Amino acid sequence: MVNQSIRVEESQSRKNKPDSSELVFGRSFTDHMFVMDYSSGLGWHNPSIIPYQNLSIDPAAMIFHYGQSVFEGLKAFRTQDGDIQLFRPEKNLQRLNHSNERLVIPPIDEEFGLEAIKQLVELDKEWVPDAEGTSLYIRPFIISNEPYLGVAPSGHYKFIIIMSPVGSYYKEGINPVKIAVENKYVRAVKGGTGEAKTGGNYASSLKAQEIVEKEGYSQVLWLDGLEKKYIEEVGSMNVFFKINGEVVTPALNGSILAGITRDSVLELLRHWDISVTERRVSMQELYEAHQDGTLEEAFGSGTAAVISPIGELYWDGNHLNINEGKTGELSKKIYDTITGIQYGKIKDPFNWVVKVGKKTEVK
Amino acid sequence: MVNQSIRVEESQSRKNKPDSSELVFGRSFTDHMFVMDYSSGLGWHNPSIIPYQNLSIDPAAMIFHYGQSVFEGLKAFRTQDGDIQLFRPEKNLQRLNHSNERLVIPPIDEEFGLEAIKQLVELDKEWVPDAEGTSLYIRPFIISNEPYLGVAPSGHYKFIIIMSPVGSYYKEGINPVKIAVENKYVRAVKGGTGEAKTGGNYASSLKAQEIVEKEGYSQVLWLDGLEKKYIEEVGSMNVFFKINGEVVTPALNGSILAGITRDSVLELLRHWDISVTERRVSMQELYEAHQDGTLEEAFGSGTAAVISPIGELYWDGNHLNINEGKTGELSKKIYDTITGIQYGKIKDPFNWVVKVGKKTEVK
Ligand SMILES: Cc1ncc(COP(=O)(O)O)c(C=O)c1O
Ligand SMILES: Cc1ncc(COP(=O)(O)O)c(C=O)c1O
Repeated sequence: MVNQSIRVEESQSRKNKPDSSELVFGRSFTDHMFVMDYSSGLGWHNPSIIPYQNLSIDPAAMIFHYGQSVFEGLKAFRTQDGDIQLFRPEKNLQRLNHSNERLVIPPIDEEFGLEAIKQLVELDKEWVPDAEGTSLYIRPFIISNEPYLGVAPSGHYKFIIIMSPVGSYYKEGINPVKIAVENKYVRAVKGGTGEAKTGGNYASSLKAQEIVEKEGYSQVLWLDGLEKKYIEEVGSMNVFFKINGEVVTPALNGSILAGITRDSVLELLRHWDISVTERRVSMQELYEAHQDGTLEEAFGSGTAAVISPIGELYWDGNHLNINEGKTGELSKKIYDTITGIQYGKIKDPFNWVVKVGKKTEVK
Repeated sequence: MVNQSIRVEESQSRKNKPDSSELVFGRSFTDHMFVMDYSSGLGWHNPSIIPYQNLSIDPAAMIFHYGQSVFEGLKAFRTQDGDIQLFRPEKNLQRLNHSNERLVIPPIDEEFGLEAIKQLVELDKEWVPDAEGTSLYIRPFIISNEPYLGVAPSGHYKFIIIMSPVGSYYKEGINPVKIAVENKYVRAVKGGTGEAKTGGNYASSLKAQEIVEKEGYSQVLWLDGLEKKYIEEVGSMNVFFKINGEVVTPALNGSILAGITRDSVLELLRHWDISVTERRVSMQELYEAHQDGTLEEAFGSGTAAVISPIGELYWDGNHLNINEGKTGELSKKIYDTITGIQYGKIKDPFNWVVKVGKKTEVK
């Protein structure tokens, strides 16, 4: 597989790039996309970079009916020197295969997947914006496309990578959000697909999200599906709490997505010798810590915002105001460090950064 | 909406129809399909019947990423007089809207949806096979197709209906299946999407299904996601048990699909004055009933098989053999009655059947 070369068909025309001050997440796409097919006999084959274009798919394709699909999300950053770099992309490919395993989708060669990302970014490198806080969002995904209405794993798949330039998440500096704890709807449960990055998890979250947004909260904080007591994660972020000087985050229990930003935060805190524990965290514990004044900081972690401080948690009639609704010192320090590494402004002692343009030869 | 007329573009060529002895579920499709678009400003618009064809969809369309979709499944039957009839189709349109509500998809006009089904079946009526036990499977579905990577309800949708001629489910007469009770994986949980007919539920079921199939079982019997004690349903069927002369079926608790066959079985049993209860049914209770010889029959109910007798239940190392692995008397009687009504062989006292070809005028 790694020995396959990627066929490249360059676009004859180039689109206008949106102004970097007007970038909206996930609305405009670059000139090219990567596509690779899978069929039972051939395995993954025919890897190609082609002009960004519509897919032509049979209405009976399984993706439209039984949702067998997985995806990833990562970013390419432009450094002050004009270099382009990815942040821990091998982790995304690992996680993609982990999701594949749960969704009964054949694994892809991770090294080759990374090579595909690099070649695509390299070809569309002019799309990596250079304004402060901007980046190129990369979306690898796999869809089942056998035209068959039986409920069974598909015999055909498409692995696709598309890319979208994104603006700064924080237009006016890092800023806390209000989050509502969800008591009725459930995102995932042990034995389900919560650990995988698959469409169904997000489809099921829309209802609760719609309700809390109307009430002025930006996202939902999910509780465990069994007892609705323990913190799981936010819509598209993992969560951390600083209680009495120590940091805690829910342990990966089988229903939480293993965030790559989460993993980076853990490494960073350990590197700094700050006490951090992965364990069960109940809403009751947070409530009590808030009452006795030891809930010092709370923040979400994810590729989109990196760190998103939580200024208010709404739970069951209680408005828990955290750190006076301001960004905590530790939250800010983590944010500055990770984004500093991503944009090449500070040293990367962890080897997280992967340069684009330094190709491994693929023949 | 009901006042919109359906634009019809007839196919210039007709496909060869598969021989009715060679029909395989969900593999071949009729000459036409129905398509209707939704966009935030216009609502549902442009209903059309067009030649069956591939969809042209942006790779960023939300369906490929966040799985926002719903579907239905029903059948058209050919009677001995050559008439074509549907079985309780209004229930499918009701359920479609119920699923829409959970998935934050705009509702469709149910009457208009039924009209679309009727017109499509009428146009492709030669595809309704006439051999014993065959039928035309109808698959209405809705996909989110706005090209946008934000996790939010889509602003665009497509409502599509495709149809596939299907062979007899039981080639050699109604026949019991072996079912394995699933102890590890979970299909749905209260607060999740189990009550809705949406792709994610089926995607998440593939893993367990794959494992039990290798062990010689045809489907998985799901337990509740909370305690893994109570019976929920089978892969694509609801379940009934006859214990000591009384029939029980799991109550609709928010994580089970409200099967239309299930509802028909309940009506039928009540009509016959056979005691039937919708309540919680634990695996332990079934195990004990099996041990003391009072577990008389077990069967699944669903559109595909109508009634599927269960000859063996495998649970946690125990093989529960039911009715000596043979089809129970009551199971058979229900099967004969429902299929009799569907094919117009016996009287329909419930008004379940809807004839195609008797059009409500749509202007
Ligand atoms: C459900 C969920 N949890 C957590 C995360 C954070 O993961 P990462 O840090 O890898 O972006 C994401 C976003 O990717 C997500 O979708
Ligand atoms: C999960 C599930 N349960 C039950 C059923 C049975 O429902 P119905 O009788 O309406 O076909 C189906 C099939 O439609 C199903 O997919």
